[in-house]
Amino acid sequence: MDKENIIEILHKYKSGSICEDEVLDYLKKFPYENLVFAKIDHHRALRWGFPEVIYCPGKTPDQVKEISLNITKKNFNLLATRASEEIYQTVKKAIPDAKFNEIGKTITCIKKERNKIKGKVIIVTAGTSDIPVATEALETGKMLGLDISIIIDIGVAGIHRVLDHKNLLDSASVIIVVAGMEGALASVVGGLVSSPVIAVPASIGYGASFEGLTPLLSMLNSCVPGIAVMNIDNGFGAAFLAFKILNTLNTIEKT
Amino acid sequence: MDKENIIEILHKYKSGSICEDEVLDYLKKFPYENLVFAKIDHHRALRWGFPEVIYCPGKTPDQVKEISLNITKKNFNLLATRASEEIYQTVKKAIPDAKFNEIGKTITCIKKERNKIKGKVIIVTAGTSDIPVATEALETGKMLGLDISIIIDIGVAGIHRVLDHKNLLDSASVIIVVAGMEGALASVVGGLVSSPVIAVPASIGYGASFEGLTPLLSMLNSCVPGIAVMNIDNGFGAAFLAFKILNTLNTIEKT
Amino acid sequence: MDKENIIEILHKYKSGSICEDEVLDYLKKFPYENLVFAKIDHHRALRWGFPEVIYCPGKTPDQVKEISLNITKKNFNLLATRASEEIYQTVKKAIPDAKFNEIGKTITCIKKERNKIKGKVIIVTAGTSDIPVATEALETGKMLGLDISIIIDIGVAGIHRVLDHKNLLDSASVIIVVAGMEGALASVVGGLVSSPVIAVPASIGYGASFEGLTPLLSMLNSCVPGIAVMNIDNGFGAAFLAFKILNTLNTIEKT
Amino acid sequence: MDKENIIEILHKYKSGSICEDEVLDYLKKFPYENLVFAKIDHHRALRWGFPEVIYCPGKTPDQVKEISLNITKKNFNLLATRASEEIYQTVKKAIPDAKFNEIGKTITCIKKERNKIKGKVIIVTAGTSDIPVATEALETGKMLGLDISIIIDIGVAGIHRVLDHKNLLDSASVIIVVAGMEGALASVVGGLVSSPVIAVPASIGYGASFEGLTPLLSMLNSCVPGIAVMNIDNGFGAAFLAFKILNTLNTIEKT
Amino acid sequence: MDKENIIEILHKYKSGSICEDEVLDYLKKFPYENLVFAKIDHHRALRWGFPEVIYCPGKTPDQVKEISLNITKKNFNLLATRASEEIYQTVKKAIPDAKFNEIGKTITCIKKERNKIKGKVIIVTAGTSDIPVATEALETGKMLGLDISIIIDIGVAGIHRVLDHKNLLDSASVIIVVAGMEGALASVVGGLVSSPVIAVPASIGYGASFEGLTPLLSMLNSCVPGIAVMNIDNGFGAAFLAFKILNTLNTIEKT
Amino acid sequence: MDKENIIEILHKYKSGSICEDEVLDYLKKFPYENLVFAKIDHHRALRWGFPEVIYCPGKTPDQVKEISLNITKKNFNLLATRASEEIYQTVKKAIPDAKFNEIGKTITCIKKERNKIKGKVIIVTAGTSDIPVATEALETGKMLGLDISIIIDIGVAGIHRVLDHKNLLDSASVIIVVAGMEGALASVVGGLVSSPVIAVPASIGYGASFEGLTPLLSMLNSCVPGIAVMNIDNGFGAAFLAFKILNTLNTIEKT
Amino acid sequence: MDKENIIEILHKYKSGSICEDEVLDYLKKFPYENLVFAKIDHHRALRWGFPEVIYCPGKTPDQVKEISLNITKKNFNLLATRASEEIYQTVKKAIPDAKFNEIGKTITCIKKERNKIKGKVIIVTAGTSDIPVATEALETGKMLGLDISIIIDIGVAGIHRVLDHKNLLDSASVIIVVAGMEGALASVVGGLVSSPVIAVPASIGYGASFEGLTPLLSMLNSCVPGIAVMNIDNGFGAAFLAFKILNTLNTIEKT
Amino acid sequence: MDKENIIEILHKYKSGSICEDEVLDYLKKFPYENLVFAKIDHHRALRWGFPEVIYCPGKTPDQVKEISLNITKKNFNLLATRASEEIYQTVKKAIPDAKFNEIGKTITCIKKERNKIKGKVIIVTAGTSDIPVATEALETGKMLGLDISIIIDIGVAGIHRVLDHKNLLDSASVIIVVAGMEGALASVVGGLVSSPVIAVPASIGYGASFEGLTPLLSMLNSCVPGIAVMNIDNGFGAAFLAFKILNTLNTIEKT
Repeated sequence: MDKENIIEILHKYKSGSICEDEVLDYLKKFPYENLVFAKIDHHRALRWGFPEVIYCPGKTPDQVKEISLNITKKNFNLLATRASEEIYQTVKKAIPDAKFNEIGKTITCIKKERNKIKGKVIIVTAGTSDIPVATEALETGKMLGLDISIIIDIGVAGIHRVLDHKNLLDSASVIIVVAGMEGALASVVGGLVSSPVIAVPASIGYGASFEGLTPLLSMLNSCVPGIAVMNIDNGFGAAFLAFKILNTLNTIEKT
Repeated sequence: MDKENIIEILHKYKSGSICEDEVLDYLKKFPYENLVFAKIDHHRALRWGFPEVIYCPGKTPDQVKEISLNITKKNFNLLATRASEEIYQTVKKAIPDAKFNEIGKTITCIKKERNKIKGKVIIVTAGTSDIPVATEALETGKMLGLDISIIIDIGVAGIHRVLDHKNLLDSASVIIVVAGMEGALASVVGGLVSSPVIAVPASIGYGASFEGLTPLLSMLNSCVPGIAVMNIDNGFGAAFLAFKILNTLNTIEKT
Repeated sequence: MDKENIIEILHKYKSGSICEDEVLDYLKKFPYENLVFAKIDHHRALRWGFPEVIYCPGKTPDQVKEISLNITKKNFNLLATRASEEIYQTVKKAIPDAKFNEIGKTITCIKKERNKIKGKVIIVTAGTSDIPVATEALETGKMLGLDISIIIDIGVAGIHRVLDHKNLLDSASVIIVVAGMEGALASVVGGLVSSPVIAVPASIGYGASFEGLTPLLSMLNSCVPGIAVMNIDNGFGAAFLAFKILNTLNTIEKT
Repeated sequence: MDKENIIEILHKYKSGSICEDEVLDYLKKFPYENLVFAKIDHHRALRWGFPEVIYCPGKTPDQVKEISLNITKKNFNLLATRASEEIYQTVKKAIPDAKFNEIGKTITCIKKERNKIKGKVIIVTAGTSDIPVATEALETGKMLGLDISIIIDIGVAGIHRVLDHKNLLDSASVIIVVAGMEGALASVVGGLVSSPVIAVPASIGYGASFEGLTPLLSMLNSCVPGIAVMNIDNGFGAAFLAFKILNTLNTIEKT
Repeated sequence: MDKENIIEILHKYKSGSICEDEVLDYLKKFPYENLVFAKIDHHRALRWGFPEVIYCPGKTPDQVKEISLNITKKNFNLLATRASEEIYQTVKKAIPDAKFNEIGKTITCIKKERNKIKGKVIIVTAGTSDIPVATEALETGKMLGLDISIIIDIGVAGIHRVLDHKNLLDSASVIIVVAGMEGALASVVGGLVSSPVIAVPASIGYGASFEGLTPLLSMLNSCVPGIAVMNIDNGFGAAFLAFKILNTLNTIEKT
Repeated sequence: MDKENIIEILHKYKSGSICEDEVLDYLKKFPYENLVFAKIDHHRALRWGFPEVIYCPGKTPDQVKEISLNITKKNFNLLATRASEEIYQTVKKAIPDAKFNEIGKTITCIKKERNKIKGKVIIVTAGTSDIPVATEALETGKMLGLDISIIIDIGVAGIHRVLDHKNLLDSASVIIVVAGMEGALASVVGGLVSSPVIAVPASIGYGASFEGLTPLLSMLNSCVPGIAVMNIDNGFGAAFLAFKILNTLNTIEKT
Repeated sequence: MDKENIIEILHKYKSGSICEDEVLDYLKKFPYENLVFAKIDHHRALRWGFPEVIYCPGKTPDQVKEISLNITKKNFNLLATRASEEIYQTVKKAIPDAKFNEIGKTITCIKKERNKIKGKVIIVTAGTSDIPVATEALETGKMLGLDISIIIDIGVAGIHRVLDHKNLLDSASVIIVVAGMEGALASVVGGLVSSPVIAVPASIGYGASFEGLTPLLSMLNSCVPGIAVMNIDNGFGAAFLAFKILNTLNTIEKT
Repeated sequence: MDKENIIEILHKYKSGSICEDEVLDYLKKFPYENLVFAKIDHHRALRWGFPEVIYCPGKTPDQVKEISLNITKKNFNLLATRASEEIYQTVKKAIPDAKFNEIGKTITCIKKERNKIKGKVIIVTAGTSDIPVATEALETGKMLGLDISIIIDIGVAGIHRVLDHKNLLDSASVIIVVAGMEGALASVVGGLVSSPVIAVPASIGYGASFEGLTPLLSMLNSCVPGIAVMNIDNGFGAAFLAFKILNTLNTIEKT
């Protein structure tokens, strides 16, 4: 439509019905982003496999359902995070093949084949209590086309449990560490491998964890340089960064 | 030496002067890390170009000088961050070809050719006040072999200044955003590009910036998923993560 | 009554039944505010359309009902914020034509024609989750006589969504930005327009948003000078400030 | 220049040397902001009287000097805030008619007549210690063309000192309150007047003021609805908001 | 009993069956507090009318019941604060004449005539939401024998509402101010009167009140010197301090 | 003068040259505070011995000097707190008999006999490091006419040091406790005596004291009910509250 | 199995089918931790009586059940902390002789005789509200073989209650203090005894206790040197430290 | 003297010059602590080797000198911490054989042979920057008679550096870990050994370390149970706790 508008203007100009200044005037006011950004966004959506991820808190079940329908109708893949059982039930009525991961609290629906992103991603969790966050990362990673898997319950208190997995950790291109308590696992893993480490502080812990503030600060202050820190419990963000890192590869390979 | 110890044990065993159980016993007590980790570290140092980066605060000039000599004597490249003029003068006496970057507060000394890491890294700063942190990142990046450069003074208050650089930003494989105040630049840049964004909160600002706490929290809460957040003013860490990201891609390419 | 008291004193004085000193003594003790402030308040209430807005938290349903009745009986317009369904049901029994906005949690009842305040006010929200706060602002604005409307879901992550609305934003005399997460929308909008921007941090977000503390700090530290910051989730206050701003302009016009 | 580029393209199109698709392609890549935003910025600068205000902390004296020269050479008025004596001396060498306000820490230089903005602005300070912040606001306001003045040392501890100025306060279109300690003055003044109140927390006070955090929180939580809160000690921002509020009037009057 | 022990020792000593050193030895080990402190405590309980006030949170209903019985059996007056309905029902079964104040959440039972403490105490509340805290103070004050009463809903936003009560406030020997939001009422009242003011921050308010942290800090930083600040919502403590202040009078009068 | 204005009005009214309505009109606009508050303030100043205490931080030496002169010229007693040596030297030039207490950082000058307030006040300090704060309280107390003295270095770590002074503590009508570290002394002293205890947190201590935040919180949470808490290091405020408490008792005695 | 692998290698070497270098190569890659750490862990488990303590928050009842079964099947003693009634019921179905302590929220099951650790441990609680935390410590201590007991309700407000127990406190080798409010009990007890004191802040208290932050900070800042501070409400950790302290003494005795 | 007072009373009683009641009366008022506590303190001082450790901050050089002289005159050993060079010079004039440790900032003077406490104590530091804190612990430990030594620069970033020292760590009865940054070393060491670990957070680090708050929180939240946490930079306290732990052994051995 916008394209047609411009073409119309150009035709008028060529035919002489409007002058040069009128074209310039039109262009100044033209909603440039329709030309420039929409294309970028479209490009991004195609490459990423979904145009938007729905963050459920603060949204009503009906709002989530509407946005979900909007996405799946365009045959994009659906990913909603932090969904409640109630939200899922509402979405399911409209999109019967939507799936719910009860632990990771994600709703997904695959409408077209997902990407295949080169490079292995491993999620490491310090304790059983970190599994929900790790699962959110896992589900997100899968939707984004990552080759992603989890190693559960590698705590720093028994350092040999970490060392036991050194070879496996070395095989990963990106590592996501989910840890509550003091979050030291990020430093220990970061010190063992040379690949980038994404650290996700978890909110489970005793009082002075302050709902994840302690591992957040701990990870930001890691003595291992270059740990990428996420928001508290943000498994989704961690998987997304892993995706962006591996995705960047394509660009470089082309050069 | 350790290797010789083991060989000696093996010889004794083969010659029958010690029995199987004695070998097992010896192996259980053997300082394993000499076998395993030393090799890993050596490998890492060779690949990265320097075995350790010196963080100067809390160290005396003499301590920094000693560690620096230790590094340069082994013909490794030297990088010391947060160095004062006084520390530099002390180091310079021992290592005359050491260089000081007054703005970035880094001491460097190149003893062997640096790596060449594929992929472009761009540092974006929100204001002139962020230049010291950006310079620390720049100097670190150069020592790590990155193809790295800076765009100065792109503030969110004039969004067109950011948009003006969109093509340049798109050309980067990794982007480092240094921003104080409310740190919104990380989100705006992150929303424009598809490559990974590393955000460094800067400590300059009015009172309620709380010496960088505000942009730190802001970046951790970015509505753009997957921003990698660093500690306040930690330009060094940002460059290091950029290095790890691009370094990991090389690994994948090989496979 | 008070007026009658004074008149009585004056008559006594004129008639000589009390002396000058007795009048002075009386005046010193006289509750001056009945003379001075009551008038001011009355004036303010008339001009604003309601004498008090009821903030419901910490009040019992019956207390809210009583205050509401007190207001509507005097034919003032009623506005109660942060009302629960239970409070509304209690109020409704006493004031059958009271309306409840379930999303904005406001109870309103129009008893007399509302003001018409010149100047357009636009509320911009960063995400669907911010709608409740934006709705509180909308409902408040309407009761205060503002020409007020909402633009929903303009996030910084897709900067073009903001730019798309530039002309509309330019048409506003006052803009209210409601944003959670990192609150960067306030800066981006503030950088695009020249009218005053009122920023309301929203409490929805991941852990390190600390229930709205992050966007609050972010907005206070905006690199755009002169952003007016409100308390967390305080849509009511934002609309009130917009009202005061536009109201003050009318005063100037008269001069 | 950009304009010429477009005209050239249009001529080529009209002459048939390039086709419709080539024009479209060109437009998509065209740096839109040169068309749209540059104009806006220019317009804004002309209307506001200066294109940028220099915030000195974190900048070297030479950097401030360079930016200052850049501004004054274009005959824009200069305003630099939080300047040290040393910075001023450096600027003065390059711009001999630059003025320094020692209390407000502002450097100013008037190159063209300032605006005249209709509407009175009054700055109210709680104590002598708040004068530096109030002076920053005063100097900024003057540069922006405001009719602005100060009332010093009106503390809540002696409420009559506030009440004494009620008539004067009522005459203002916008009031700026600078207060440290508990910042209660913002609420008291806000409760007395109907014009918008801009509150600036000051950092002077006993330990538990936490360098201005207490009055900041206090002002954000004012029981008077619609107080516009600024960052700690940010007198500049307060004057800027006052300017934006009064400036918006022009727009409305035109309608 | 203890007294008898000592007497026995003394008799033995006088009769020569134990020597001087044995008496000294006994005295060194003697539980001195039985001599000294028990008397003090007894004295205090008699004068105050109850030996202990029960703070219910963290205690089971049965625990509260047991402690209550323990107190009432000795014919002391009972005061339990922060009691739930459930706790009250449990206590009531054991102590049928126990009373529950639903708003103040206090359980009381009068077993003997309460003290009569000279001097008037007035509780001032900023808003209806502060009534529960004020009621806790009122109930506590009554149990302690204070001549205590409440003035409700005197907010700073309408300063005349405070001034209206100046004469009444002047008549008080001690004033307790309960205020949430920004807590400015403590300063305003403190500036009007010369008697000691006890300030109690209340936890009701918008997000950045941080559950009472804001008025707490505000009251600690009051520009009125010598405000006595209590913990958040601690109406009990405020009444207790008022009691201690007026109680001290007896001592002085005697001198 | 104001009084004369009123009298003039009354005379005019009596003589019939103005009517009743004109008197009423005049009274409404009359600056009431001149009638009411000025008297109160005057009364307060006379009773308290000085009209204002100068808090020096944020004031220039000249500003302090000017305010000081203003006070001493009216023959009021002078008290300035937190004064630097430099400020004192400036004040001394104008007021040669001004005294400086180097430890308490107070400037005083006695122009008329100070009050004699009945009731003993004792300041207790936990350690030698608390002496500056205690001295500020002592100097303030003396200026206010208190019978005030100090007990130094009574720490909780050696509880017998506290118990040793029990009789002395019992003899006080008001006790001021100055303590840093964990501030436990306030609770221990508060548990031993029945008179009101005023607690002043001190800022000296290890890192996690957070410059006095820890003893501040500790004192607010004391298990002893009714501790009156002051701002960090606010010895002045503590003495002022002691004064208010004892002053109010005198009022009661009169009744 | 691993052992067999090594033996096989050694046999091959002795028989000459592999050379010295091949053995070295094998050893470098050998999963060292199987040799070294497994033994350590086994040793530790045997000595401590259980290999792992289950922290229940964030785990599903089924997860706790599975881990519990895993432990009891190996005939280790079971200890799970922070268990809900629901978790207990799930565990009980699988392990019928599991016991639940409702106050301390611990699940225990004794499969083999517990250790007997020399040295008395006493838990001291400041108030009835601290009993749950103290009970967690008690239950943990018993499982670890400590000679451990509780003294309830020794508050600092009545210092004689502490002094009354001095002899008992002196008899302990390690003392655990559980205290909420201002946590002063840790300092008072620490000042009375010479044995190590372990302090556990409790989360019950008024608003400004900030859920245990106040006693935590208070204990960290104790004026008594060498108080060992635990996380908020962490009774388990306190008992564990007491165990480690007494356990280490046994080691020394052996030497 | 006190003893003589009692003896005198007893003699009077025996001789009949005073009666039983008079003795009882005397005993009630008797300063019990002279009997009971003085002995305890004396005993403690003898056993510990010094009666008080001087914490210098907030004390003048002269105050430190006076307290030091007081201690050395009684032939007790002297330990002052956090001393400046200036304080040392002042002390040295009075006590010529006082020694200053420039790194640990301790002043010591040995007047009598120090204790010999059984059991090895090892201090582990994460980085060179932690040496000052570790040195304070070392000097304190030596004065207390501990067999204490330091291992420097064992960081978690290179986990093998920790593992290399496992045997040495195992040989210690108590381990003190000093660590800044994220403080993960405490957890890693704590997971490797079975002896008690005392963790000291250090204040050196990037911005979001918040001067040691991060490692403090990290250590409190360690996933290794029973870490004893000290205040930030409190090396003194750590050594003191190590002393108390090993000292407790004597008591147990005797039993």
